[in-house]
Amino acid sequence: MKKSLGAKTIAYPTPVFIIGSYDPEGKANVMTAAWGGICCSKPPCMCIALRKATYTYQNIINKKAYTINIPSEELAYAADYFGIVSGKDEDKLSKAGLTAVKSDLVDAPYVKEFPMVIECKLIHTIEIGLHTQFIGEILDVKVDESAVDSKGIPNLDVLKPMAYAPEVGKYFGLGREVGAAFKMGKEIKER
Amino acid sequence: MKKSLGAKTIAYPTPVFIIGSYDPEGKANVMTAAWGGICCSKPPCMCIALRKATYTYQNIINKKAYTINIPSEELAYAADYFGIVSGKDEDKLSKAGLTAVKSDLVDAPYVKEFPMVIECKLIHTIEIGLHTQFIGEILDVKVDESAVDSKGIPNLDVLKPMAYAPEVGKYFGLGREVGAAFKMGKEIKER
Repeated sequence: MKKSLGAKTIAYPTPVFIIGSYDPEGKANVMTAAWGGICCSKPPCMCIALRKATYTYQNIINKKAYTINIPSEELAYAADYFGIVSGKDEDKLSKAGLTAVKSDLVDAPYVKEFPMVIECKLIHTIEIGLHTQFIGEILDVKVDESAVDSKGIPNLDVLKPMAYAPEVGKYFGLGREVGAAFKMGKEIKER
Repeated sequence: MKKSLGAKTIAYPTPVFIIGSYDPEGKANVMTAAWGGICCSKPPCMCIALRKATYTYQNIINKKAYTINIPSEELAYAADYFGIVSGKDEDKLSKAGLTAVKSDLVDAPYVKEFPMVIECKLIHTIEIGLHTQFIGEILDVKVDESAVDSKGIPNLDVLKPMAYAPEVGKYFGLGREVGAAFKMGKEIKER
């Protein structure tokens, strides 16, 4: 039997994305977002959903660009901090001791110390309710050289991306490999 | 130094969602989708992105409803199968030996053997490119009683949700707890 938990935003896993943007004075800001993901293969796009009250919201409206940074487990404390305070009140990167790097593709900064960044150009803005969804075309994905194998495939043992678990209120690392996609289901197909 | 991987759909983690829908004859269909996530808190909403060529696409257009099922690791092989074949060609649930249950809230089926389901009513359709994004309002979240603790919080050790890793092409379980959200970053705030 299933138990009803009500109309709540609960799904697993959700990502831990750090959104990079510039304010009107050119100050780099970052905020944490778990509401988002990939939303189109051609053109390659990612969506993120933010409240209008965030500092990042207005930055993205102004600059039509953002980065999605993927922090490793080691910097979970910084990723969490970026979701606790507003860029209106603090220079978050400076306080966390992390470094903004200007993207050469979009008018947005990324975080040097995070091992992966996705650079996005805003192409759609959808008003949903409390959250506004931004859809951005992916112009490039950059990964630390140490976290890419010889075939150019990201190495998750080095990247150590995290998942956020709503309602549970915790971050988790990725765990054991369950199987190969587009392969482990073939046994059923061939029945 | 960061290495450029190009304009590709790479982000970690992405979810393993099984989308439930009814075809015009009332046959339950399921497909796997990793392009999706939560996209609004009020109203609570989730988005999924599908290609128009999928059987599910037309089902959702017709019924204006879908479910998002979250499979556990044990049923990874079925989740993978649901992404390999089309409901146009096979009765996927029957072939996998799984059971469709009609939602009492929306005109869509969910999968009894998967421990969690999110029932969604279509509220927005956004044409992006190869993929169309459906935004659905969450009407309820249902979880197996065995996977909810005494406080009504999902127990991830029982749910065992998976993450899909694009480019790597593998499914992973969730791993060790990294820390508590909205807590572990407070140390930086208080600096």
